[in-house]
Amino acid sequence: MPITDAYNAPVKDMKFVLHELWDASELSTYEGYEDASPDLIDAMLEEAGKFMKNELLPLNQSGDREGCTLENGVVRTPKGFKEAYDKYCENGFTALSTDPKYGGTGLPHTVEFMVQEMVVSTNMAFGMYPGLSHGCYNAIYLHGSEAQKDQYLPKLNTGEWSGTMCLTEPHCGTDLGLIKTKAEPMGDGSFSLNGQKIFISAGEHDLTENIVHLVLAKLPDAPEGVKGISLFLVPKFIPNENNEPGQRNGVRCNAIEEKMGIHGNATCQLFFDGAVGWMVGQPNKGLAAMFTMMNAARLGVGMQGLGIGEIAFQSAFDYAKDRGQGRSLAGTQSPDKPADSILVHPDVRRMLLRMKANNEGGRAMAAWIALNIDKSLKHADPEVREQADDFVQLMTPIIKSYMTDAGSEAANLGVQTMGGHGYIEEWGMEQLVRDARIAQIYEGTNGIQALDLAGRKLGAHYGRYLRTFFHPVSTFIEENAMNPDASEFVGDLAKSFGWLQQATGQIAQSGLKDPEEVGAASSDYLRLFALTTLAYLWCQMALKAKAALKEGRGDAAFYEAKINTARFFYKRMLPEAQAMFKMIGAGKDTIMAMDEDGFSIAA
Amino acid sequence: MPITDAYNAPVKDMKFVLHELWDASELSTYEGYEDASPDLIDAMLEEAGKFMKNELLPLNQSGDREGCTLENGVVRTPKGFKEAYDKYCENGFTALSTDPKYGGTGLPHTVEFMVQEMVVSTNMAFGMYPGLSHGCYNAIYLHGSEAQKDQYLPKLNTGEWSGTMCLTEPHCGTDLGLIKTKAEPMGDGSFSLNGQKIFISAGEHDLTENIVHLVLAKLPDAPEGVKGISLFLVPKFIPNENNEPGQRNGVRCNAIEEKMGIHGNATCQLFFDGAVGWMVGQPNKGLAAMFTMMNAARLGVGMQGLGIGEIAFQSAFDYAKDRGQGRSLAGTQSPDKPADSILVHPDVRRMLLRMKANNEGGRAMAAWIALNIDKSLKHADPEVREQADDFVQLMTPIIKSYMTDAGSEAANLGVQTMGGHGYIEEWGMEQLVRDARIAQIYEGTNGIQALDLAGRKLGAHYGRYLRTFFHPVSTFIEENAMNPDASEFVGDLAKSFGWLQQATGQIAQSGLKDPEEVGAASSDYLRLFALTTLAYLWCQMALKAKAALKEGRGDAAFYEAKINTARFFYKRMLPEAQAMFKMIGAGKDTIMAMDEDGFSIAA
Repeated sequence: MPITDAYNAPVKDMKFVLHELWDASELSTYEGYEDASPDLIDAMLEEAGKFMKNELLPLNQSGDREGCTLENGVVRTPKGFKEAYDKYCENGFTALSTDPKYGGTGLPHTVEFMVQEMVVSTNMAFGMYPGLSHGCYNAIYLHGSEAQKDQYLPKLNTGEWSGTMCLTEPHCGTDLGLIKTKAEPMGDGSFSLNGQKIFISAGEHDLTENIVHLVLAKLPDAPEGVKGISLFLVPKFIPNENNEPGQRNGVRCNAIEEKMGIHGNATCQLFFDGAVGWMVGQPNKGLAAMFTMMNAARLGVGMQGLGIGEIAFQSAFDYAKDRGQGRSLAGTQSPDKPADSILVHPDVRRMLLRMKANNEGGRAMAAWIALNIDKSLKHADPEVREQADDFVQLMTPIIKSYMTDAGSEAANLGVQTMGGHGYIEEWGMEQLVRDARIAQIYEGTNGIQALDLAGRKLGAHYGRYLRTFFHPVSTFIEENAMNPDASEFVGDLAKSFGWLQQATGQIAQSGLKDPEEVGAASSDYLRLFALTTLAYLWCQMALKAKAALKEGRGDAAFYEAKINTARFFYKRMLPEAQAMFKMIGAGKDTIMAMDEDGFSIAA
Repeated sequence: MPITDAYNAPVKDMKFVLHELWDASELSTYEGYEDASPDLIDAMLEEAGKFMKNELLPLNQSGDREGCTLENGVVRTPKGFKEAYDKYCENGFTALSTDPKYGGTGLPHTVEFMVQEMVVSTNMAFGMYPGLSHGCYNAIYLHGSEAQKDQYLPKLNTGEWSGTMCLTEPHCGTDLGLIKTKAEPMGDGSFSLNGQKIFISAGEHDLTENIVHLVLAKLPDAPEGVKGISLFLVPKFIPNENNEPGQRNGVRCNAIEEKMGIHGNATCQLFFDGAVGWMVGQPNKGLAAMFTMMNAARLGVGMQGLGIGEIAFQSAFDYAKDRGQGRSLAGTQSPDKPADSILVHPDVRRMLLRMKANNEGGRAMAAWIALNIDKSLKHADPEVREQADDFVQLMTPIIKSYMTDAGSEAANLGVQTMGGHGYIEEWGMEQLVRDARIAQIYEGTNGIQALDLAGRKLGAHYGRYLRTFFHPVSTFIEENAMNPDASEFVGDLAKSFGWLQQATGQIAQSGLKDPEEVGAASSDYLRLFALTTLAYLWCQMALKAKAALKEGRGDAAFYEAKINTARFFYKRMLPEAQAMFKMIGAGKDTIMAMDEDGFSIAA
């Protein structure tokens, strides 16, 4: 049995961030969310946690080992995936937060976020099938015609049909302006698509009776580059008059990729050979529609980092507490045993605490973003809605990038905690390293996220996005400057925030003259931003915990652990922020000076 | 064809570190090394580079895919391994640096080190077979009886027989005091061994006619713990009177592990069932003998980090220069092409430069250590020999730990540079991530290395080891304080060195009262030490390069690239040193405060 089987959904911590750190009860004051009381949310999380543990986790290792197979154009998912998928749909997990008008449950996105974490923890490869459908739903919901919505959204909600995002081609991933797939108008409102797409997750499989491909392609008269991209809906089977899968469309899976991980998910090469499609949205405006889908997907990928981080942490802890090796440096702790648990060793604890601090801090950040998504959609005041959306825009690249880096780090620390056993397949930890790795790449590599933050979000609307973060943080620092409970944190928070402000000014200024300065700073800037965000969140969490302890509320051990983790973050992780600040300050020179030959001249 | 096939052995850089940074011509002044002239060394490196590229690299990906198989106790290595191994032996690579008395070539260990890097770059899994033999050779050479040496060393040198190190058991890896394998004296000088060993690399295979297992086991009357461990030599086939493989011994491979990587190497579970063995060295002194082997192995594992780092760098660069995606932030660079090479993007360059700076800095460090190994063995003056050995002792955990971390980082940066293609098996980069990962674990996890450095090496002989590093660095800083060529570096070097000195004093002091303080500081201390070492080396390399440019010697582009890389290291990597210093300064409190329940209370 793999060590990862001990996982339990961290519902206790989810409740803490939703109800103590933030105030999720506000959700039920929004129109349409009236039923989403704290009690209902908590019950949903409990149920979801059990379902994922019981139904998805047992298929995680077997799915990795078996992988997907392609035979005569038919892709088979690993044993058990179909049955689990059917149950997943029956339990409504495909439609948690979607519009009741199309059969959705209409719960807040905040609930969806938390559930997503659990899905990833228990089976990331599986979770990508409904995950892609969700992205497809969003794009059609926001950009499709009424007829398209009526036709496709109910099927996506029930999970009978699934969806994909077809962007990448062999010669282009990041630079979508280069795509070659063509869409010719057939005169009847439909288009004929021809081209090849690669790296299409869930591109072909046996879980659903139909697959709805959203495909970026170019019209015959399209302008060059990204201004000439349109979005098309291409169903695997063309729906007949009863909206049941009818004629097989001209899209075929030619090959599935052999990958480092997520073997349970079919990554397909798709050929479109006169495939019939319909345009979603306006001609040549496909990229904007795709970005709607992409932004949601980026947040989802950030949650993948957190999901992997959580199960890696729990599993590593589970191993460490039972593995005896050596004696405590402070003297024997378990004289009745041949060795002490490796949890006595400071360096093992250091690894576990890094994981824990990133996970719980990341969960606080995720909840903050998710609550703002709901606010941006449902709040009565349009100004509040806009502000909330600004904040989500700002934080999207940060959670995608930082949390997927943290997820990979956690999986690797999990392996390291387990020593040789971490490297052996049967224990299940090395799979997490392989699965986690893709999250740093897809939906825009983490380097692209950093450029999005530093090059686009930072300057957007004269810094309007940025103010949604800078303003509450500076207010918080001011308000807590004399708060004795905050005194152990707030000085370091202020320093880190000061570096972030300075770095922001510096990038804004130097970037005006030379955009390469922005590129050279971007990754370190994103990391500095994320660390400052976590510092802000950890200080708040510690204050909440201290208050609860004073009031004698709840589980004292829980709050003490929170405070200890906050202290660990501040003393043993936050110091990296200064290094990032210094590296940013060094500017682009040392990065751009090397000419092409200089890279290869030593060999 | 995988992207990694473009690899070329970095002989040019090896020559630079051997002959310009250091002075390898000194080697030929040592007794026994008279033939090892710079010209001969260079010729050897050229030849070795070609051999590894032509013979080992083509088997790297196929070996990973095919893996090893076990059937009826017989382990088969991947297709082509046996033929390549025979050529490897014919070309003398199994005996490069071993004693001519036993058929070795007797070249300096420095040459062996450089060749090892190439072996790992081209085929790490393959390289472990002769690598383990080499460790086995060393242990017998230093601790075996004359008869054992005469019997086994010539066979290990020709490569006809291979070797293993059998330490780990299911319940103990790091804590070898817990081993259960028993060795009973049979009265005729031989012993009967019973027990189980796991994770035995190259434990069984079809490359050689015999395998020499070195096995840690306990005598019936052995004291408890590490003071009761003895070392035994257990051949797979007991040599007959002609020293040819005779009767099959009672050691069997029960299973081979399914691992994350190094699939071409058989990681075996071995059962010793009344296996006949002979003691190597003294009763109950096996751990010391094993540590001889282990220390050499740790240096070898450090070279694995470097080897993976180098091929990851070269391959990522090769991909980046040909992959067009987007346009330069400074304006279009290749107007005739649909996109610029991704090498124009600052963040791609940042990743490549990190890899390059660690590789070339690590190679300089490796050469420094290797030259000191040769000095410690061959120098005429015993005081010089002792000093050189002290230095090697000090640096062993640093190169093992830092360079294997850097190797994994490089492989991951390689994947990141390639985006989605990095995650796909056929491109070859993700294999490097999987292969590299084990090097951070085996021969003592990197956490154990850090404890070895901070807990053992730091205080050894009242700081005698430490002085072999601190003294030359402080002299160098003094000497170059006013050197205008050094002025861009030496201030930062002095700062980092100052932090290292302060951290050393702090650990030494707090550790006296509380050894957990040492454990809590160890990993960050090792990293601070490594960064300071690299800073010292990069400053020296930049000075050598500046001098060469002034004198108009050699290839100006090579020296300019060196200087650029030095600047990158100082501005964009060395700042991490201060963060490490701060984390060390925080002490153990935040690490040790959490009780066991606190770790798991959030779920």
